[in-house]
Order: sequence, then C-alpha cells, then structure tokens
Amino acid sequence: MNAPFQPHILDLAGYVPGEQPQGGGFVKLNTNENPYPPSPRVIAALGEAINERLRLYPDPLATEFCRTAAALHGVSPDMVMAGNGSDDVLTVLTRAFVGPGELAAYPSPSYLLYSTLIRLQNGTEHVVPFSAGWKLRAEDIVRPGLKLVYLANPNSPSGTALSRQEVADLAAAIPCPFIVDEAYADFADDHAIPLVRDFPNVIVCRTFSKGYSLAGIRLGYLIARPEVVEQLVKVKDSYNCDALSLAAGTAALKDREYHDQVRDRVIATRTRLTEALRGMGYTVPDSQANFVWATDGPPAEPTFARLKERRILVRLMKYPGLQPGLRISIGTDAEIDRLLEVMREPG
Amino acid sequence: MNAPFQPHILDLAGYVPGEQPQGGGFVKLNTNENPYPPSPRVIAALGEAINERLRLYPDPLATEFCRTAAALHGVSPDMVMAGNGSDDVLTVLTRAFVGPGELAAYPSPSYLLYSTLIRLQNGTEHVVPFSAGWKLRAEDIVRPGLKLVYLANPNSPSGTALSRQEVADLAAAIPCPFIVDEAYADFADDHAIPLVRDFPNVIVCRTFSKGYSLAGIRLGYLIARPEVVEQLVKVKDSYNCDALSLAAGTAALKDREYHDQVRDRVIATRTRLTEALRGMGYTVPDSQANFVWATDGPPAEPTFARLKERRILVRLMKYPGLQPGLRISIGTDAEIDRLLEVMREPG
Repeated sequence: MNAPFQPHILDLAGYVPGEQPQGGGFVKLNTNENPYPPSPRVIAALGEAINERLRLYPDPLATEFCRTAAALHGVSPDMVMAGNGSDDVLTVLTRAFVGPGELAAYPSPSYLLYSTLIRLQNGTEHVVPFSAGWKLRAEDIVRPGLKLVYLANPNSPSGTALSRQEVADLAAAIPCPFIVDEAYADFADDHAIPLVRDFPNVIVCRTFSKGYSLAGIRLGYLIARPEVVEQLVKVKDSYNCDALSLAAGTAALKDREYHDQVRDRVIATRTRLTEALRGMGYTVPDSQANFVWATDGPPAEPTFARLKERRILVRLMKYPGLQPGLRISIGTDAEIDRLLEVMREPG
Repeated sequence: MNAPFQPHILDLAGYVPGEQPQGGGFVKLNTNENPYPPSPRVIAALGEAINERLRLYPDPLATEFCRTAAALHGVSPDMVMAGNGSDDVLTVLTRAFVGPGELAAYPSPSYLLYSTLIRLQNGTEHVVPFSAGWKLRAEDIVRPGLKLVYLANPNSPSGTALSRQEVADLAAAIPCPFIVDEAYADFADDHAIPLVRDFPNVIVCRTFSKGYSLAGIRLGYLIARPEVVEQLVKVKDSYNCDALSLAAGTAALKDREYHDQVRDRVIATRTRLTEALRGMGYTVPDSQANFVWATDGPPAEPTFARLKERRILVRLMKYPGLQPGLRISIGTDAEIDRLLEVMREPG
C-alpha cells in the first residue's frame, strides 16, 4: 500500500516538532511556550463555553473573533482569517499559492516547517541565507517564477527581527505573496500589520501559542487584503476553528492588561538570560522573541544532553554551515535560574 | 493580487456549509447535529482540562486518544490518526493520494465536500451515480488511473448504507485507497472497521460531530493499516488536534452508556419522523443516519421557505437530475413535533 501515496509524500521526512513530554516534571524550554498561564478571563470564557452548545458546529467564518482581532489591529474584519493554529494558516497559504514544481523562498536558518509545507505541495524550495547581522537582501530572495516568500519576523532560532522599514523594502521588491509570520511579534518592538495597507502582497500571520499562553488550544490568524482573504477562505476546512478556541482567543485579545504584563515579565527575564549566557561565553543575538539563541560558546551538544538528563529541555538546533546552537525558551525566573545553575556546572 | 493564486483555486466556488445562525431561537435541523447535549463525563473532562497546561502544546500524536479509540474498535493504536474534525482527516487523505490531474471518484448524490477536496488538489472528479436502491457497482467506480475513492456510508443525503459485505466487495474491486467515511455510523446497524484487517486499501473515518454531540470541538479520526497511518501523519499539521478536543473525545469514547442511550433516542425519533413524512406523501428511504431524506412529495422549495420563515432550518438539497429534496436532521421529539406541525399546515 505504499505505492498509492504521492511520491513526494513518501520522500518526505516529515516535520519533527520539539519534544512534548506528556508527563510532568520537566522544565520545558524547548518549544517556546509561555511560562505563565493564560489570562483568567480566558479561563472564565472557556468555562462559559463548555455547555450543551458544543453539540452545534462553530461559526465557519469565526465572525466575532475576526471582528475582535480587526478592532485590535485597526483593520476591517474581512481582512482577518482564523486558523487552527498559525500552522493551519501557513498550510492554507502554501496550498493557495504554490503548485507542483513551483518556487517558494524562505530564509535559513528559520522555521523548519516552511520547507515541509513547500515539499507537501511538491514545490521547489529556494533557501535564502541570512546575510551578516541577520539581514536579508531582496536580490537574494527574488528569482524568476517565485510564487511565495515566507519570513519569520522575529525569526527563529535567531530571535532577531527586521524593522518595519526593512520588511517594507522587501515587500516592495518581492513580486509575489509575502508571508510575514509574526508568531513572536508579541515580544517584539514592532510589527508589519500596517504594511498590509500599502503592499497588497503582504500577509501577516499571528498565533495564540506564544504571547497568549494558549499553545494547547490551536488558534492563529492572518491579516491580508479582503480580496486575498476571500480566496483563502475557499482553501481552509469549513469549520477549521472550534468553538472553545474561538471563545478563548476572543477573550485573550480583549485582555490587553494581562497580555502586556506577561510580555513585560518575559522580556525582563530574556534580558537577564541573555546577559548570563553572554557572560558564559555564548554569542547571543538581541532577541525580539520569547527565546534566545546561544551559539559559539561551550559545546552545545553535551550541554543539551546534560540539561536533558536533569530534566531541563531546550532545543538543540543544527543548521548546515553553522555551529550547533541552543534555542532556549524564556521560562519563569525560577526555571531560568535552574537552567543557569546546571549550565554553569563543570561539564 | 488575484493573479498569484493557483488558477484552480480562483475557479473554485468553495464548499458551502449549511447555515449556522449564531443567534438562538432556531430549531436547527439542517446540519445533522445531535439534539442532545454531550455526555456529562465530557463536560467534566473539559472542565478539568481548562487549566494552566493550555499554555503547552498538545500531544502531536494524540497518543492517549488513539489508544482509547483503538481499544474501542479492537485495532492497534498505530492504526489510528486523529484530525481536526473528519474534514481535516479527509483533507489529509486527499492531499496524500490525489495529485494534479489525477482521478478520484465519489458517488452522487453524496457529501459535497469530496468534490471540493479533489478540486483543491486540482484533481479530476469521477462522479459515480448510485444505481437503483442506493447501491453502487464496482464497474461504475473503477477507471484506469483511479487514485482514490470516497464513500459516505451511511450516505448523505439518502441516509442509506451499504452492508459490510457490499463494502467488502467494493474494496476487493477497487485498485486504490478506498475511504469509507462513517460520519453517521453511530446510528447505523453495521460498520466497516473490521475490513481494515483484510483490505489494505480501506480507510475508515469517524467523527465526534454527530454521534457524540461534539460538532463544536472539531474532532475526527481515521482507522487504517499502520503503514498507511505512518505516511498520513507526515501530511497533517503537527499539532492538528487541540488539548481540549482530545480530552473531550477521549472521555466521550469511554462513556458507552451515554452514547448508546442518545443513539437509541435518535433512532426512535427517526422511525417516527420517517413514518410521518411517508404519511404526508414523501418518499423517505430507510435511514441509517441521524437525518432523513424526503423527496417526491409536496414541493420541497416552498416547504423549505415556510419552515425557515417559522425559524425551523432544514437542508434543501438539489442534485442534477433529481427532484429537490429536504434533508431533515433528527431533533428532539418536541422539535420534530413542531416541524411536522408546520409541514402539515396548508401551503
């Protein structure tokens, strides 16, 4: 029964997500989850949504959620589409724009899922190396026949971000849809949503998994021109977002005070962790995300193994041409203290 | 910005789900939701799952859920894959098996989504008309180059089902993957899961939207050979099922008593509605699902409009070459009494 699969599916290794131990007892700093709980208002909204109405289908267009997101970002509701996590949004975008053999570009090192998504479409990858200082040059991205460009901004694993002006300059030069994946924008100084007005090719993606402490509910969304959203809605599953996620997401967007307070705590810990790692000899770019990227210091692989042995999970990432590095999610202060303690032990 | 879309996406009308009024006040008999609430054990499991662990990603392989489903169906856990509703499962299957221009077959009249899924892949549809008595002939299905066959069993809108032996005969004749979409099997006399053992091409899909009163949480699953599941997992989004849906689904599968009690009530009402509609002059096939299909009686369109005016939603379905018909979901007894009262009023 292998034969009937599409050959490019058989060839695919498949995206490998970070380890998700289902038991407790781990300090989990490997998949950029938020160390703080979701807003109490989210918990309350979920409590209210658990009722006999779960027997009914959810709103296929997530109308109330889209209205809330639109109001927050100063766009119109027809510029918002919700997805089952931003991975679903990225899947829909790739299916809409990339056909077999067609070219799609993404920077490297970056989110490894982009490669998987292109290959699931049997498309062709154009991998664009970052230039010095984690910048990107339009001339390295643009190629004849290019159908789609992905940009994680802030980027993973580097934690760095291009400025809004730098994104605008790329948008102007890129002749096709340009996804600005802002999964980590909640922790950044700036974002690209205002560019959607001026650049019809810009599509901004957001998620609840990081800034809103809701990785478990799977909710993301995109912001794009209405005529783009109109087509994308045809590609998504009709009922791609469940009633509970939509209730949670809507409540989360409305509780700005909690969001900002959690963000500030994460950023304070990020500053402290960055300085501590630099003090240990690692190179750590200034992060705009809820993780830091530590390289070129004490060897990454034995450190990773020692941490794991002590039940502290970080992400060991190896990219071609680069030293293996450790991507460390920002935990609570106590978790980061524990991490640093183990990292400082003699190897 | 229309140009960059894949041309087959621009050409697509998009799947139109049944109306989902978000306000109350409707007797909703149009999208085959269950009229009874989810099991109290499901509500309790959801209550427990609403906690700070929602900040963490769910188990990407839905291990505990798959174990529970496997135990219920007498298969091994590596034969189960969970999805974000059975629509997600059907999407994954279509992407895995149907490439551009390739042929996929489905019966007509049946679930309209199959057509949309094939067209989203830019595949070619082979529409197979049911023969007399809602049967299917293998020779009408099998064509050179066929890559995938969908069968809704029980079927919508007819409510009829092929027997396990009839499905086995088709499976033996079909030279490619054969999806038996058992969304309504909870209300049927039989099902095809045991066939997976004997026919490596059979893939059975299930959902929580009908038999478990959980359309709002979006959860479905498939049962197939382990070597098939192993490939399909590469196609799904990594975290396609959220933590709450998995908790709800696992609890729902375990509460057999509640499931069977709800099923029996729905079946009793189905029998009563079928007889009443036949008494009014409609042709109503014996249903194995949680809806009935009424045709060739009093004209469907004015009846549909009159019901809607009285805030009773049923589904008016028009298929080429057939009289328009009414697909009526089984509601509570009170809802069905109200429906019949309005239907009996002089047009």
